[in-house]
Amino acid sequence: MKPLGPIPTGFTAIEGELAIAGRKASDLVAQAGGTPLFVYARELLSQRVADLRAAMPERLAIHYAVKANPYQPLLQHMAGLVDGFDIASGGELAMVQAAGIDPARVSFAGPGKRDAELQAAITAGVTLNLESEGEAARALDIASRLGVTPRLAIRVNPDFDLKGSGMKMGGGAKPFGIDAARVPALARQLIAAGAQWRGFHIFAGSQALSADAIIETQGHTLALAARLAEQSGAALPKCNLGGGFGIPYFPGDEPVNIAAIGAALADRFAQLPAVLEQTAFCVELGRYLVGESGVYLTRIVDRKESHGEIYLITDGGLHHQLAASGNFGTVVRRNYPSAIATRYDAVAEEEASIVGCLCTPLDRLADKGGFPRADVGDLVAIFCAGAYGASASPAMFLGQGPAHEILI
Amino acid sequence: MKPLGPIPTGFTAIEGELAIAGRKASDLVAQAGGTPLFVYARELLSQRVADLRAAMPERLAIHYAVKANPYQPLLQHMAGLVDGFDIASGGELAMVQAAGIDPARVSFAGPGKRDAELQAAITAGVTLNLESEGEAARALDIASRLGVTPRLAIRVNPDFDLKGSGMKMGGGAKPFGIDAARVPALARQLIAAGAQWRGFHIFAGSQALSADAIIETQGHTLALAARLAEQSGAALPKCNLGGGFGIPYFPGDEPVNIAAIGAALADRFAQLPAVLEQTAFCVELGRYLVGESGVYLTRIVDRKESHGEIYLITDGGLHHQLAASGNFGTVVRRNYPSAIATRYDAVAEEEASIVGCLCTPLDRLADKGGFPRADVGDLVAIFCAGAYGASASPAMFLGQGPAHEILI
Repeated sequence: MKPLGPIPTGFTAIEGELAIAGRKASDLVAQAGGTPLFVYARELLSQRVADLRAAMPERLAIHYAVKANPYQPLLQHMAGLVDGFDIASGGELAMVQAAGIDPARVSFAGPGKRDAELQAAITAGVTLNLESEGEAARALDIASRLGVTPRLAIRVNPDFDLKGSGMKMGGGAKPFGIDAARVPALARQLIAAGAQWRGFHIFAGSQALSADAIIETQGHTLALAARLAEQSGAALPKCNLGGGFGIPYFPGDEPVNIAAIGAALADRFAQLPAVLEQTAFCVELGRYLVGESGVYLTRIVDRKESHGEIYLITDGGLHHQLAASGNFGTVVRRNYPSAIATRYDAVAEEEASIVGCLCTPLDRLADKGGFPRADVGDLVAIFCAGAYGASASPAMFLGQGPAHEILI
Repeated sequence: MKPLGPIPTGFTAIEGELAIAGRKASDLVAQAGGTPLFVYARELLSQRVADLRAAMPERLAIHYAVKANPYQPLLQHMAGLVDGFDIASGGELAMVQAAGIDPARVSFAGPGKRDAELQAAITAGVTLNLESEGEAARALDIASRLGVTPRLAIRVNPDFDLKGSGMKMGGGAKPFGIDAARVPALARQLIAAGAQWRGFHIFAGSQALSADAIIETQGHTLALAARLAEQSGAALPKCNLGGGFGIPYFPGDEPVNIAAIGAALADRFAQLPAVLEQTAFCVELGRYLVGESGVYLTRIVDRKESHGEIYLITDGGLHHQLAASGNFGTVVRRNYPSAIATRYDAVAEEEASIVGCLCTPLDRLADKGGFPRADVGDLVAIFCAGAYGASASPAMFLGQGPAHEILI
């Protein structure tokens, strides 16, 4: 039997069934109109942001990275919780605008911004995190043509990475940002060109569970920001410290210790160098804010045995949960937290694999896990489905189409 | 410098630029309305099917597996070329119906067929490749309720796999099909229940380049079909021999020797046992028929250097070409065949990585390949984009949306 990842806190059982924000899984499926279904819980989102705020120094603003989950009702809920939003495309700009979010709270990072996206962002008053000198030149040209003062920041490719992170975004050659050594010259040039100077975006990695690693990286980030600001010859108005806070997906994973990170950051904020004294700091988090608030519910349509192994075949699959199937950015497949939602408080009594309905061996949601005996009609829950689920999966694969989504 | 995969035959240069079916890449982009763009060439599709027919015994029918590429105009073109279609969902059933394809030419395999999908397929007269005894019971119930004689075949989980295949679909415990040992009893039951008996579907693996391995597997498949037909006590009307024919994607890959496969199959067809003498045989191919006919074109929006490495940043990426980025069913990332389309006949003069516009290190289309010097505005071509491209990628990731597609 292979272990399953740890189920996040905040879920209970009602009449033997998984309950999300006090509502039974089967009731939520009925309300949404069927399976497969992503359920996102407002109370878990709100609690997560509240806990984070309590742990972090007041001076630290909290931004939401829209790419983690752009579901419109969720975005609207987040608008009341966080201080800013980070977008990665013109498509995401349209989404935050549709959610009524003030573009002055929005910044835009991404290595391949098209002219049309730069124009839309500059027109709206979004801060651009510039990824290259070439992009800076295009942005200044477009702003000048529009007769608008652009809000410009520089995304720095730091000389260090975030140790133990699932995705390294710094340390050596990278397509993201501008190598640190070239940043001061560009900053001076942007300021001289009359842009509204918005400072630095320094993102070293994501999905780390070690507070020590995050604390160390934040230390490097503050030191780099101070050095680059000095060399730029201007006080730093803003500094995005990046993200990096991970969530536990796999057996043995432990939640990141945010109290330790907050305490270390408070210490550092208390002894900032002069060039950073007036700087507004933020972190940019996606997965950490929304990942554990979501559950993917899918129904068992067949139960079969093959050479002594049991397969629970569902109406969902990797077309909605690519990462849970182990096919997105992972080398070794491990099981996400999962359960039989309609037998949530029953004990495990057999080894079974939960697979999707796609005709490919890649489509496996849980491999040889221990579950209560489940049958056709039962609901399966895959947890940690609030981030990089629906929008990060090939919904149209094998003619399937998107899942239902609800925010409760 | 890392090697690039082999560019398929059939492409030329016109005025220094990649030409697809005699049309310059830049003209195709203009016609389609922009990049990113998937181009599929009718003449390459037709040639591929003609070459395959010439190599295979006349008795072998050729089926197209819609999952490889369900683009509607391509499906319509394939309708005039192949003998049958294999679908994997109710969504794909709707697609073949929209293309005006006779449902009598269609069979439906897939481990998680919902009742509504079974009903639609039975009503339309599609052959169901049954994946379990439970699914068989549901299909018989639904047909009886509808007052329709269902066309039923059994998908067999073979006791062998296809050696060297990219995807193993047989050999040991699998979610697909019914273990061979249980097949005869179910076949007798279906025939006794009055279903129109359509025989066996035996799919052992896909994406193999070794003719020897395919020949060996086809031998096992015919032997298994004969044995199961004998044990079922009925002549076998039809036998789907599966697929398995791969295409070269990576450095060192060689095209599969279809002449050898055809000759071996002709030998075997000449000495079939009595129980298979009247059997209609087919192969079910997706990637092999359409993969090399397609090219993904994307435009360079930035050229940058980081720590001495050159990045060509495009307006496309893994949201359209997940497999080419190395993030779908592969353990070790290798480069697909790729080129600077607008400098197609120029010599390689620098090492560069071609990346997508997504803000993630996973989004890499070509890693440290040798290319002519390219700049903003140049078009990049990723080959072997005709199968498992557009529909097998997370188009909505980071708010990007789908690529353009054209059939020329």
